[in-house]
Amino acid sequence: MAAAAPPPPPSAAPITLPESTPSGHTLFTRIRLATILDVPHIHSLIHQMAVFERLTHLFSATTDGLSATLFPPNAPPPFTSFTIFLLELSDSPFPPTQNDHFAPLLKTLNLDLSIDDPDKEAFRSNGNDGNTDVTVGGFVLFFPNYSSFLAKPGFYIEDIFVRECYRRRGMGKMLLSAVAAQAAKMGYGRVEWVVLDWNVNAITFYEQMGAQILPEWRICRLTGDALQTYAHTDV
Amino acid sequence: MAAAAPPPPPSAAPITLPESTPSGHTLFTRIRLATILDVPHIHSLIHQMAVFERLTHLFSATTDGLSATLFPPNAPPPFTSFTIFLLELSDSPFPPTQNDHFAPLLKTLNLDLSIDDPDKEAFRSNGNDGNTDVTVGGFVLFFPNYSSFLAKPGFYIEDIFVRECYRRRGMGKMLLSAVAAQAAKMGYGRVEWVVLDWNVNAITFYEQMGAQILPEWRICRLTGDALQTYAHTDV
Repeated sequence: MAAAAPPPPPSAAPITLPESTPSGHTLFTRIRLATILDVPHIHSLIHQMAVFERLTHLFSATTDGLSATLFPPNAPPPFTSFTIFLLELSDSPFPPTQNDHFAPLLKTLNLDLSIDDPDKEAFRSNGNDGNTDVTVGGFVLFFPNYSSFLAKPGFYIEDIFVRECYRRRGMGKMLLSAVAAQAAKMGYGRVEWVVLDWNVNAITFYEQMGAQILPEWRICRLTGDALQTYAHTDV
Repeated sequence: MAAAAPPPPPSAAPITLPESTPSGHTLFTRIRLATILDVPHIHSLIHQMAVFERLTHLFSATTDGLSATLFPPNAPPPFTSFTIFLLELSDSPFPPTQNDHFAPLLKTLNLDLSIDDPDKEAFRSNGNDGNTDVTVGGFVLFFPNYSSFLAKPGFYIEDIFVRECYRRRGMGKMLLSAVAAQAAKMGYGRVEWVVLDWNVNAITFYEQMGAQILPEWRICRLTGDALQTYAHTDV
């Protein structure tokens, strides 16, 4: 009686491994700091967001305006002022990159099907060192805020947006998590943003991310002519 | 029949003019940029605000924490990051002062009665070039925010507070107007803040100042342990 042969697994059912997954698809994702080269895509994404939020009547941004205000000459370092993380997608792995302020976040998604992106050409990413296969899928725009009760800075997320064809695959969560992780690493006290009360899907998503929805607070906004009247008034 | 004498006023009641207003009082006010010397008063004011908002359970600020985060070494210029305007009050005129970033705003209030300030000694202002008669009455803390729809920065007001004994004399309006005026002068697009929906007096006041109250938006907040879980998670 040799002990050389291991016993068969108990009640082992026959396992058939597919030789390949014919419809399987690997999507490589990267979250990196945006640069002024990304402004045309950022402008398009902000406009798509205004359409989704039914707020195009409030949209007046131009690419020149975005460049001047988001990426001014002598801009302060990332995270100390207006900051954008861009979500990029590719069928090929991203090459290693260096950034003194933020190491890009890489994640590989295994999808059942490849994603049909009708705007793939329009959202081809810039500044990717010769890799022409990179598409911009979304972004998050945030900047420091401050909690006087905590005596700590935090981040306020002004915009978070994933293009429609890429939704429901965890990419919004990746963008929000990237901001939360950065806040936690910097010792910040809070990440805050706002949501429309009719956007039930978003509210559920945010609560699953660990956020509280504060029911009692209302936003007050002074803008347009009402703001301009203060330019020349004595206090 | 001479027309020289004008007719007496109809049913004119005798009018007695007081020779002086014995209880009249002149209060000199100044709004200036706060400095690190003002932190003890700012800390006290934030705590009084937490009491008023019934939110002392969320208050954990210390003077050291405020100094380190509001007035760090190599702080960026005022208005580009966290900024505080302090409201000071005095029975004597304020001397002329110089500030490269913000010329203090002076206003003289004529009151019926002098104001009895039970905390006058505790809120004696620092840094007033030998004038010991200056009291801190309130503050506003604000910082840049960003509207991507407008492609313009704005200001977000985190706190605005006037000590109880000085309320209902237009001082909150002076502080809010000072921020609005600064925003308008800098070409900014908006000034925003939040209000508790039960604070009807504040809502009425803000609407009179020209603000819209946005009914549909809710604040989402990720903080405490829920935020810390993101420090070490992969996206």
